[in-house]
Amino acid sequence: MKVGIYGYGNLGRGIESGIRQQPDMELAAVFTRRDPQTVKLQTEGVPVVSAADVADWKDKLDVMILCGGSATDLPKQTPELAKYFNVIDSFDTHARIPEHFADVDAVSKAAGKVGIISVGWDPGLFSLNRVLSDSVLVDGKDYTFWGRGVSQGHSDAIRRIEGVKDARQYTVPVPAALDAVRSGKNPELTTREKHTRECYVVLEEGADAAKVEEQIKTMPNYFADYDTTVHFISEEELKKNHSGLPHGGSVIHTGKSGLNLDHNHVIEFKLNLDSNPEFTSLVLLCYARAAVRLNSEGVSGCKTVLDIPPAYLSAKSGEDLRAHLL
Amino acid sequence: MKVGIYGYGNLGRGIESGIRQQPDMELAAVFTRRDPQTVKLQTEGVPVVSAADVADWKDKLDVMILCGGSATDLPKQTPELAKYFNVIDSFDTHARIPEHFADVDAVSKAAGKVGIISVGWDPGLFSLNRVLSDSVLVDGKDYTFWGRGVSQGHSDAIRRIEGVKDARQYTVPVPAALDAVRSGKNPELTTREKHTRECYVVLEEGADAAKVEEQIKTMPNYFADYDTTVHFISEEELKKNHSGLPHGGSVIHTGKSGLNLDHNHVIEFKLNLDSNPEFTSLVLLCYARAAVRLNSEGVSGCKTVLDIPPAYLSAKSGEDLRAHLL
Repeated sequence: MKVGIYGYGNLGRGIESGIRQQPDMELAAVFTRRDPQTVKLQTEGVPVVSAADVADWKDKLDVMILCGGSATDLPKQTPELAKYFNVIDSFDTHARIPEHFADVDAVSKAAGKVGIISVGWDPGLFSLNRVLSDSVLVDGKDYTFWGRGVSQGHSDAIRRIEGVKDARQYTVPVPAALDAVRSGKNPELTTREKHTRECYVVLEEGADAAKVEEQIKTMPNYFADYDTTVHFISEEELKKNHSGLPHGGSVIHTGKSGLNLDHNHVIEFKLNLDSNPEFTSLVLLCYARAAVRLNSEGVSGCKTVLDIPPAYLSAKSGEDLRAHLL
Repeated sequence: MKVGIYGYGNLGRGIESGIRQQPDMELAAVFTRRDPQTVKLQTEGVPVVSAADVADWKDKLDVMILCGGSATDLPKQTPELAKYFNVIDSFDTHARIPEHFADVDAVSKAAGKVGIISVGWDPGLFSLNRVLSDSVLVDGKDYTFWGRGVSQGHSDAIRRIEGVKDARQYTVPVPAALDAVRSGKNPELTTREKHTRECYVVLEEGADAAKVEEQIKTMPNYFADYDTTVHFISEEELKKNHSGLPHGGSVIHTGKSGLNLDHNHVIEFKLNLDSNPEFTSLVLLCYARAAVRLNSEGVSGCKTVLDIPPAYLSAKSGEDLRAHLL
């Protein structure tokens, strides 16, 4: 199947390398809003095309993977491209998912295409596990922990502070909270009790460290509700020790069964990822495969990970999966 | 939806209590091969019907959940009942799944019904996670660990030894093996390196403990390939400390990404269950719901957990799931 990448940042590069691992896919083109001449891919032989010419590729791709951001790119781009292609995106603004779903659904249905939105690990594989465990353990409670991993949104927020040259922020689950949840105690946890935030900050020359630290720790929404630690380090140290984008986390669901609800059960789905964008890309590619298959069966409209049968994600046949992995 | 239970043992009782947790289900009847007069349910107001009369219930049930064993019951019963009902079973003889699938598929298709086989946690939720992680992490390796939990097959095998009055066998994953896998080391592990077996045995009066222990430890297939410990205990101690049926385990998949495959990822799905039959029952009920929904959309034939979209398992609407769990 011929895959297009729309937007060439961390995620686009992850798709580019991830496609090489798939037996049934090839990268047909990378689309960019920049001057295509200025975009240098990691691999050879793939055209870089101006986003303005994307409609010319209508019949040349089986699926387009959108690699833009959720704030302003995807709400516009996914419905726009759904006119021409089966589309996959990683839209992750939870509160706006119903609206985005409706937008993509209308266009995809009219075009006879499939669009799968909010694909990745959260939303994505974590959502799938939340629904799975919420369905099985009806009398239960679910918890999502993120990290230890780099939050790009929080790193960006620190970088916008005056006097900050660069920064990296790690979201860290509180071990005692994880232990309490895993033990089946069903604790009520505040935001502060679930996660801490660790910041590694490179200052501009002459910047006031105490002032920067104060601004970080009191920043509403991002840091004020958390126990936050700030470490000032050199640019070299940041490059050497904090240049990766690791992430992960756990969805833990506890619940009860039995006539008197006296048996406890714990379901946990856990990820430990060296590279958040590369792993997200591998998930996107599986759902791209599913979109093409569904569409070839005559399905159209917007879907999420909750609508996709697991077998559609695999390059292997149903017989093979039943014989070896069931 | 009206649910029938076919076979009233541990699993049947688990379904009976699990239905009370579902907002959209009621238990319509329990079918038994015994004299129905002799079967006393845990709850009131539900008819116990002779298995011989099951065809009379053809239009009175939305789905039948089969609670028999995989060795001899299900290979016959599931295809037989698929003539009349949407059916769900927990067939777990991995090697015979393709054959069982074909048998149920032929009958279900002819009858215009849906049959979902091999539902539970392994096969079942573990299979789903094996396929999910095998699809995402193509260059990877997967490991399944079971326990710590009671293996009924192994407990039965001990009970068949002369001089044994009762026994309980726990399958226990080896902590060092779990640690090595979780760390992403991709170890090659022998059977002995993955699990140990702990046996709690009550002897008949005058039995030869040393001889029993020897027979257990050298039993082919069941124990010979494992490090096995045998504890002789009193009947009271067995009742007091070993009367439950806890189980669980982990599916762990490790794999690589990146242009040079230099980033590692670990996906783990873990269960910790106080009651194996009750948890299995809750899973069966979710897939019973999915079978009824699929059939109401005109689908027929045999399915497994790999064919079912996660949203079909939940009593909640697609809108609700997208707004709150995605």
